[in-house]
Amino acid sequence: MLWAQIAAMSEHVMICEVGPRDGLQMAKSRMETGAKCDWIAALAKAGVKEIEVGSFVPAKLIPQMADTEAVVRFAKEIPGLVVVALAPNLRGAQAAVAAGAHRVSIPVSVSEGHSRANLNRAPDEQVAVVGQIVEWMESAGNPAEIEVACSTAFGCSIDGVVPEREVVRIAAALAETGVEQIGLADTVGYANPAQIKSVVRAVRREIGPALRGLHLHDTMGLGLANALAGLEVGIRDFDAALAGLGGCPFAPGASGNIVTEDLVFMLESMGFGTGIDLAALIAARRLLHEGLPAEPMHGQVAKAGIPRTYRQAA
Amino acid sequence: MLWAQIAAMSEHVMICEVGPRDGLQMAKSRMETGAKCDWIAALAKAGVKEIEVGSFVPAKLIPQMADTEAVVRFAKEIPGLVVVALAPNLRGAQAAVAAGAHRVSIPVSVSEGHSRANLNRAPDEQVAVVGQIVEWMESAGNPAEIEVACSTAFGCSIDGVVPEREVVRIAAALAETGVEQIGLADTVGYANPAQIKSVVRAVRREIGPALRGLHLHDTMGLGLANALAGLEVGIRDFDAALAGLGGCPFAPGASGNIVTEDLVFMLESMGFGTGIDLAALIAARRLLHEGLPAEPMHGQVAKAGIPRTYRQAA
Repeated sequence: MLWAQIAAMSEHVMICEVGPRDGLQMAKSRMETGAKCDWIAALAKAGVKEIEVGSFVPAKLIPQMADTEAVVRFAKEIPGLVVVALAPNLRGAQAAVAAGAHRVSIPVSVSEGHSRANLNRAPDEQVAVVGQIVEWMESAGNPAEIEVACSTAFGCSIDGVVPEREVVRIAAALAETGVEQIGLADTVGYANPAQIKSVVRAVRREIGPALRGLHLHDTMGLGLANALAGLEVGIRDFDAALAGLGGCPFAPGASGNIVTEDLVFMLESMGFGTGIDLAALIAARRLLHEGLPAEPMHGQVAKAGIPRTYRQAA
Repeated sequence: MLWAQIAAMSEHVMICEVGPRDGLQMAKSRMETGAKCDWIAALAKAGVKEIEVGSFVPAKLIPQMADTEAVVRFAKEIPGLVVVALAPNLRGAQAAVAAGAHRVSIPVSVSEGHSRANLNRAPDEQVAVVGQIVEWMESAGNPAEIEVACSTAFGCSIDGVVPEREVVRIAAALAETGVEQIGLADTVGYANPAQIKSVVRAVRREIGPALRGLHLHDTMGLGLANALAGLEVGIRDFDAALAGLGGCPFAPGASGNIVTEDLVFMLESMGFGTGIDLAALIAARRLLHEGLPAEPMHGQVAKAGIPRTYRQAA
């Protein structure tokens, strides 16, 4: 069978590029707005369908995100691109909608320690904030989708082990608010593949198809193994960052997101479709490097080159 | 349940450290014999039960392996350690046995291009060499075990795609010679998890329990995902190299082996037992670095530190 035939039959996996948000918030220097926009445009041109382009947080806390409104306004003009913006509260969600974001992503930490460090609120208080945002969004005629990312769902560098039952409890409370897209985030990269499967199954038993994606970090080198585990229990939505940028300023020890290029390589090699042109994606690293020359870039496929066997069926 | 209880019930996975062989053969500088021995002793002390300590090949081809006889003689005095040495032919196997190796590992490339580049013989000619070694070993009263590693079983940087049926054919021919331990090697790191499962199942259908281990490289960043795929189809023997050293001098584009530390972290986190003390393993990196200061060291767990959640059940 030819690869073109396999690709036509293949199941689609959605990759949301989070580099412009989760990647840049940890960068030591600030990327200029024009460079961000060029990079986002190149990602979209490579076939990336969803990009988390920034976050509506106080500029004094995360200066790298001060230009998010301008970036959203740029990105929403790119045809076919779903523009996602993070917002930690109602004010941020309203700003995201005013700028034209198609989807607002709200973080809710499962662990108390990370929740207080990141949001200065207890987990259940943040669930109530999500409820406010859902209500406001409905009253405004649903101008954007809402998704919630359950942070520290697989462990916390502040609180340590995060019990599975606590993840299930928070996910259930979120589903109660009416949020229809709930993801699980391994914020600090402590997850292992067995845990991924166990937590995904437990959460899905409770909230069903409202469980959507996984957000994984490669702190311990297990990022793609954890993605594979997620795939094997039916997850078809993953966050990733070009060159493995990322981390969390309020989660000590966390390192980069899983590398978008390597994830695309894995998925396409396994016969899944991502709609992403791997060579064009790798080429977009140049723009990232030009915009942030001091930032280390990760990723094995970009280093080794796309092998000649890529997408050739055996 | 406490971690000690889980560990006591856990299934064992055998890790063979191949750094002193597969790692050093690619190193730009040469590691002194004394440094090799100190490193091997530290690995054994950390709980590594099998170490591939060198190869019996002409010193003019791979000068880093010129002291393999002395290294084997040192390593075989370490109580409980299984000492493995690579040998590409009968003469090498006889030298390995004379030095006191417990197991001789013989490479057989599945792809013609790699076979000729690495061994200057066609794959079937090398299968015949294995047959000679098996006969000689039996006539000598089986002084050592024999294992065969099927190189380029998942792709070749010279020949490209390696058909699964060809892997099955070579594995079957090897089983015919009487070899009882046959492994599959992703020499250049082109494998993907779906392929790992498919090839392992196909080879096992043909040769049954003679299929033992996987030898994986992390060229494309998929090393641990491929190990997970192998685990899920019942593989319980893996090669790995401390700090992800390695490659193949006759396989252009190949990069390091999967990182022993990260593999141990993944397996133990999942509840498998390896018998390896992760902190002691990470400490052994210092000896490697002292012996080969110019060599880049890989591995995420060593960089991030062992998380406080390690081996704490949720």
